[in-house]
Amino acid sequence: MRSDGREAGSLRGINITRHYIKHAEGAVLVEFGDTKVICTASVEEGVPPFLRGKGTGWVTAEYSMLPRSTHTRSSREAARGKIGGRTHEIQRLIGRSLRAVTDLTLLGERSVLVDCDVIQADGGTRTASITGAYVALVDALHLLVERGTLPSLPIKEAVAAVSVGIVDGKILLDLNYVEDSAAEVDMNFVMTSSDRFVEVQGTAESEPFTVEQMDGMRVAAVEGIRKLFSIQNEALSR
Amino acid sequence: MRSDGREAGSLRGINITRHYIKHAEGAVLVEFGDTKVICTASVEEGVPPFLRGKGTGWVTAEYSMLPRSTHTRSSREAARGKIGGRTHEIQRLIGRSLRAVTDLTLLGERSVLVDCDVIQADGGTRTASITGAYVALVDALHLLVERGTLPSLPIKEAVAAVSVGIVDGKILLDLNYVEDSAAEVDMNFVMTSSDRFVEVQGTAESEPFTVEQMDGMRVAAVEGIRKLFSIQNEALSR
Amino acid sequence: MRSDGREAGSLRGINITRHYIKHAEGAVLVEFGDTKVICTASVEEGVPPFLRGKGTGWVTAEYSMLPRSTHTRSSREAARGKIGGRTHEIQRLIGRSLRAVTDLTLLGERSVLVDCDVIQADGGTRTASITGAYVALVDALHLLVERGTLPSLPIKEAVAAVSVGIVDGKILLDLNYVEDSAAEVDMNFVMTSSDRFVEVQGTAESEPFTVEQMDGMRVAAVEGIRKLFSIQNEALSR
Amino acid sequence: MRSDGREAGSLRGINITRHYIKHAEGAVLVEFGDTKVICTASVEEGVPPFLRGKGTGWVTAEYSMLPRSTHTRSSREAARGKIGGRTHEIQRLIGRSLRAVTDLTLLGERSVLVDCDVIQADGGTRTASITGAYVALVDALHLLVERGTLPSLPIKEAVAAVSVGIVDGKILLDLNYVEDSAAEVDMNFVMTSSDRFVEVQGTAESEPFTVEQMDGMRVAAVEGIRKLFSIQNEALSR
Amino acid sequence: MRSDGREAGSLRGINITRHYIKHAEGAVLVEFGDTKVICTASVEEGVPPFLRGKGTGWVTAEYSMLPRSTHTRSSREAARGKIGGRTHEIQRLIGRSLRAVTDLTLLGERSVLVDCDVIQADGGTRTASITGAYVALVDALHLLVERGTLPSLPIKEAVAAVSVGIVDGKILLDLNYVEDSAAEVDMNFVMTSSDRFVEVQGTAESEPFTVEQMDGMRVAAVEGIRKLFSIQNEALSR
Amino acid sequence: MRSDGREAGSLRGINITRHYIKHAEGAVLVEFGDTKVICTASVEEGVPPFLRGKGTGWVTAEYSMLPRSTHTRSSREAARGKIGGRTHEIQRLIGRSLRAVTDLTLLGERSVLVDCDVIQADGGTRTASITGAYVALVDALHLLVERGTLPSLPIKEAVAAVSVGIVDGKILLDLNYVEDSAAEVDMNFVMTSSDRFVEVQGTAESEPFTVEQMDGMRVAAVEGIRKLFSIQNEALSR
Repeated sequence: MRSDGREAGSLRGINITRHYIKHAEGAVLVEFGDTKVICTASVEEGVPPFLRGKGTGWVTAEYSMLPRSTHTRSSREAARGKIGGRTHEIQRLIGRSLRAVTDLTLLGERSVLVDCDVIQADGGTRTASITGAYVALVDALHLLVERGTLPSLPIKEAVAAVSVGIVDGKILLDLNYVEDSAAEVDMNFVMTSSDRFVEVQGTAESEPFTVEQMDGMRVAAVEGIRKLFSIQNEALSR
Repeated sequence: MRSDGREAGSLRGINITRHYIKHAEGAVLVEFGDTKVICTASVEEGVPPFLRGKGTGWVTAEYSMLPRSTHTRSSREAARGKIGGRTHEIQRLIGRSLRAVTDLTLLGERSVLVDCDVIQADGGTRTASITGAYVALVDALHLLVERGTLPSLPIKEAVAAVSVGIVDGKILLDLNYVEDSAAEVDMNFVMTSSDRFVEVQGTAESEPFTVEQMDGMRVAAVEGIRKLFSIQNEALSR
Repeated sequence: MRSDGREAGSLRGINITRHYIKHAEGAVLVEFGDTKVICTASVEEGVPPFLRGKGTGWVTAEYSMLPRSTHTRSSREAARGKIGGRTHEIQRLIGRSLRAVTDLTLLGERSVLVDCDVIQADGGTRTASITGAYVALVDALHLLVERGTLPSLPIKEAVAAVSVGIVDGKILLDLNYVEDSAAEVDMNFVMTSSDRFVEVQGTAESEPFTVEQMDGMRVAAVEGIRKLFSIQNEALSR
Repeated sequence: MRSDGREAGSLRGINITRHYIKHAEGAVLVEFGDTKVICTASVEEGVPPFLRGKGTGWVTAEYSMLPRSTHTRSSREAARGKIGGRTHEIQRLIGRSLRAVTDLTLLGERSVLVDCDVIQADGGTRTASITGAYVALVDALHLLVERGTLPSLPIKEAVAAVSVGIVDGKILLDLNYVEDSAAEVDMNFVMTSSDRFVEVQGTAESEPFTVEQMDGMRVAAVEGIRKLFSIQNEALSR
Repeated sequence: MRSDGREAGSLRGINITRHYIKHAEGAVLVEFGDTKVICTASVEEGVPPFLRGKGTGWVTAEYSMLPRSTHTRSSREAARGKIGGRTHEIQRLIGRSLRAVTDLTLLGERSVLVDCDVIQADGGTRTASITGAYVALVDALHLLVERGTLPSLPIKEAVAAVSVGIVDGKILLDLNYVEDSAAEVDMNFVMTSSDRFVEVQGTAESEPFTVEQMDGMRVAAVEGIRKLFSIQNEALSR
Repeated sequence: MRSDGREAGSLRGINITRHYIKHAEGAVLVEFGDTKVICTASVEEGVPPFLRGKGTGWVTAEYSMLPRSTHTRSSREAARGKIGGRTHEIQRLIGRSLRAVTDLTLLGERSVLVDCDVIQADGGTRTASITGAYVALVDALHLLVERGTLPSLPIKEAVAAVSVGIVDGKILLDLNYVEDSAAEVDMNFVMTSSDRFVEVQGTAESEPFTVEQMDGMRVAAVEGIRKLFSIQNEALSR
C-alpha cells in the first residue's frame, strides 16, 4: 500500500474539466490527484518561418509553473529573465507528443499553441500536461471543423502520458511528489491509442536500471495510459 | 442598464475562495465577474538587502497573466525574457497597497511575497488582485500567529480596490473588459477600511476629466469598496 | 517656511531652455530648482505595428537618469540589462500625458519619441519631465508645420505636471528631494490648460489620506500647474 | 548496406584522443565518424549552493556547437543571449549520465565541470559527448588521486552512449546526420558497464513505435555500447 | 582651411566646466567644439572581487550617449537590454587611460567609477571623455585628500587624448563629425604629461596607412595633447 | 633568450591547416605556438540592413574562447547571457582587418561571416585569429570564383597580425601567455602585404611608453608580419 492508499499499479484520481477558461479555443483543467494544470489551446493563422510555404501546420507548447504551485515558492522565470533547462525540456516534450498524433498536413498553414500552466504541483506535471493538452487540442481543432475552416478533425489518434518509477525496489505507477522524490528510477511514457510510443524517457536517479525493470515499468505504463484514454474519451463525449 | 445587466453603481459578482492552493500559507481565488485571479502569500524569513538590520519586515507582490487569460493569446513574459511596463506598474501597485495596511515593525525581519496570477481576464485584474491579495496576506499572517511566530496579527486595517470609469459620459463602477475598452477615463481607487486612500490613479484614455467627474468617480468607488470589505470579512470569517 | 525658504504653495525656480541639443527637432533643458532634465523630441516617419494603416500617429517617451544624477550613484540600466519598474512607470506616464494633448489623427502616420534624461535629480523628475517634454514636443511639431509636412500644429491644448505632498501634516507644492523623502503622501497631477486632468496619481507613503486631504492637494496642484502654463508659454514665445 | 558502407548494427569509426587541450585536468577529442567533440573536465573546489555542507560532490556539463560545426552556420548562443532548449536538454543529459557513475560522496565537496564543444557535427553529438566526457572525467579524477587529494578513484563503473534509429523500417545503430534526418524513430541509450541503463530516450519523429521496435533498438544499442566500453578502456590504458 | 575654419593642426574650442552636477565627488562638463560630455567621478569604498585583499584600488569607467545626442536618434542600450560593442570598447579605453596615471596602491581598497555621458555628439566623444574624466577624477581624489581619507593625491601625472585623421590625404587634428565620417584613417592618442603614451589606436577606415603617415599623425597628436594639458591645468587651478 | 628558447625578434612555430572543418566554405586551424584557433568563413547571400541596396558586400567576425582553452576555466558567454567587452573588441578588430583587404564592391551583396574559436589559448589569440581568418576568407572566396558566382577573387592584398610587447624593458615579438602577463606594454599590429597598417593598438599595461619604444615595436612587428605573409602564402599554395 502506498502513502495515499493506492496500489502499486493504480492511477491517482484523474479529472478533466473542459471549457475551463472562456477565451481559449480549447481550455482544460486536468487533475492527477493534487497535481492541477490548466491546458489551453490557441489557434493562430500562419506557421513559424522554417515551415512557411510548405503547406503544413504546427503544434507547439509552452509550460510554466505558478511560483507557489510548489511546496516552497519558486522564483518566476519572467523575473529571472530566462527559461530554465527543465522548462525547456518539458515544453519540447509536450509539443512533440501532440504533433505525433496531429495530421499537420490536414491542419494546413496554421499553428496551435498549447499552454500548460501548473497551478498546483504534486508530481507528474508533465504527464498530466500531455494528457490534458490532448483534450484541449481536440477541442480547439473541433472548433475549426465546426467553423468550416477544416473539413475534418486533423487528429490521427489519441495521446496520453504517465510516469512510472521504482521506489524501494518496487514499480509504482503515477508517482506523487513524495514518491517521486524517493524514486530510484523515473520513467515517463507517452503512448498513442494504437499502443505505440511517441516518447519514452527513463532516468536513473540513484541507481541504474536493468532490462527487466525497464520492461516491468513499461507494462505498468501501458495499462495506466489505456485507462487515461478512457478518461479522455469520457471527458470529450460530455 | 449596462451590457451585463448591472446598474451604474453595482459591482460584478464577487467571490473569494480561500485555501485554493494547498502549498501556500495564504491562497485565494478571487473572482470579479469573469475576472479570476489566484493570489498566494508566501512567507520567507529575511528581508531585501536595503532593509536588513532595521528590524522591519517587507511585503511585495508579483503579477502575471496566463498567456490565454486574454481574448487573444499574449506572449509569455518569461519567453520574451523581460517583464513589461504594465506588469511592473501593477505589481508595484499591489505591493504598496498591501504594505500600507501591514504593521511592518510587528512583522519583524521577514517577508511576505504575494503572487497574483490572472487565470481569466475580463477587466479589473489589478483591483481584483489587491482585494484578493489582502485576504491571502491575512491568512498567511494568521498562520504565523497560530504558530507562535508572531504575538498578534500585524494588520492595521483592511484594504480593497475597485475601478471606476466614464463610459459615454456616465460613471460606471467596476468595469468589465468591454466597458474598459470603451472608457474615456479609467480610475483605480485603493482604500482602507477607515475610508482613507492608499492609492488613487486616474487616467484620461481619450478625453481629460474635470474636477466634478473626479469627485463623482470617487463617490462611486468609496461605496463599491465598502461592499468589498464586507465580502472580504465574510470570506475571512468562514 | 520650507527648508529652501519657499512657502507651502510655491513652486521652485522653473527654467525652460529651448534648443538645448542641436540635433533634435525639439530639445529642452527644464529645471525645477535643482532638478534638471534634458527633454528631446525626435520625429520618425511610421508608427508602431499596432497602429499601422489606421491613419493615426503616436507619441511615446523614454526616461532615464544619469547614474550620478542622484546623491549616491545608481547603477546604469543598460549595464543591468533591463529597465526597472520605476522607469517603466514614469515613461508610460509621460507618454500618456503627451498623447492626451496631441491630435494624433492630424499628426498622421508618424511618431514623436520624447527622451527625458535626468542629469541632476532633486525630486519631481517626472513632473519636470512632462512639463519640459511638452515644450520639446511643440517645437518638434512646429518644425513639421514649418517644413510643410503638417498643415497645422496637432496640439489640442497644453499639458504640465506638478507634485504635491503632505509633510508633517502640511500640504506642500512641488516637493524637493528632502521633502519627498519625508512625505506621508505624494500625489502627481497632470493637467491640461482647460483645467482638466489627464493623470492623477496619489500614493500614501506611510499613512493613508482622507478625502479632505486629497481635495487640498488638488487645489494646490491646480494653482501650481497654472503657473507652469505661463512659464511654458513664455518660453515658447521667446 | 548503409550510405557510408556500414552494416545496420555497426558503429562508425570511433577515436578517443586524450590530453587534447593542455590546460584542462581531463581533455579528450572524441570522434564518432565525422562527429568531433572536444570534452574537457575541470575540477573546482566547492559545490553549488544546494549541496553546500552535505559532504557530497557534483558533476555537471555544458554543451555547445561551434557555429560552423553544422552544414549551414548556426547563430551563436552567446550572440542570441540565451541558451536554446535543445542545448539545455543535452547538457542536462550529459550531467546526469556522468553523475550516475560517479561516487559523489567519495568525491567530497568539489565539482567537476565537463565541457562538450562540438567542432564538427555529423549526427550523434550527444552520445559522442557522453562517451568522450566519461574518459575526460576519469582523467581529471585520476589527477586528484595522483595529487593525493582523493584516496581512490570515485568512479563506480563506466558509462557510454549510442543512438539507434529506425530508417525505412530498419533498425540502424549510431546514425550519421543523413540517416538521423530520415529516421522515423530516434532513441538514445546511456548504459553503464554493468549493462544497466542510466538514461533511455526514445522519440517518434514521424511514426510512433511499437514494443517490438523498442526492444529491437535496445538490443542493438546494448551491443554497440559494449564496443564503446572496449574503446574507452583501450584509450584509458594508453 | 577646414569646414569650420580651423587649420589642420588646430583643436576645436575646448571648455572644461567643473562642479557641473552637485551630487558627484567630481563632475565636469567637457566640450570639444559641439561635442559635450558630462563626466562624473564617484568614489566607492571597496574594490571588485578580483582585487580584494590586495591593498590596491581601482578606477573604471562607463560611457553612454543620450539617444538624441546624435544626428538621428539612436536606440537606448537599456531598452535593447545590452551594451553594444562600440560602447564596451570606449569604456574600457577610458578606464585603462585613467588607471595608467593613478597610483592605485596609494588609493587603497576603494574604487572610482567615472561616468561619461555624451549629451551632444560631434566627433571625438571618446577623446573628450578621457580629457574631461581626468579632471573629474582629480576633483574626486582631491576631496578624499581634503577629508583626510588619503594623505596625498594618488595621481602620477596628467592624461588627455585627441583624435587625428587623414581626410583627402591631409592630416587633421581633432576631427569633428563631418571630417570623421570622411576620414580614410582615424587614430586616437592617449598621452600623459611626460609625453608618453598609454594608448594608441589607429584604424584604416578605407585605405591602409604607411609608416610615414603614422608618424605625421603622431606629431600632430602630441602637439594637440600638450595644449589639452594646459587647458586641464587652467581648469583645475580655477 | 626567452623562456621558450626564442630570440626577442622570433615568431613562435606557426602552422596553418586548411580544410579543417568539412562543412565550412573556408576552415583553417591556425597555431601560433600553443595558441590554437579554428577559423571558419561562411558565405551568406545578402547583407546587413544598413548596406541593403548599395551593391556592396560585408565581412564580419565573431570570436569566442572555449571555456577550457584557458589555464583556469572561464565561464561561457552563452551561459552568462551576454558577450563581454573584450570579446566585442576582438571581434570588431578581426572584422575591420578583413574588410580592409576585401574588395566589398566586387563581392556584391553577400556576406562572409568569419568565426574564430580559440580551442587552446597561450597569448596572441587575436593576432592568430586575424592571420588564420585571412586564409579561411580566401578559401571561401575562391570557392565563389570556382562556382562562377564571382568573376575574380575580391581580395586586394593579404593581411596578417602580430603582437609585440615590452617585457623587462626589452622588445619581444609574438608574446606567449607568460610574457603577455608580465608585459609593461602590449601592441598589436595588423598590416597588409604592401607594408601598410590597417590597425595599430598599443596599451601601456603598467608604464606609459615613449615614441622611441613605439618605433622599436613597429620595426619588430613589420618583420614578423612579413614572415607571416610567407607562411600564409605557402599554406594557400598547397
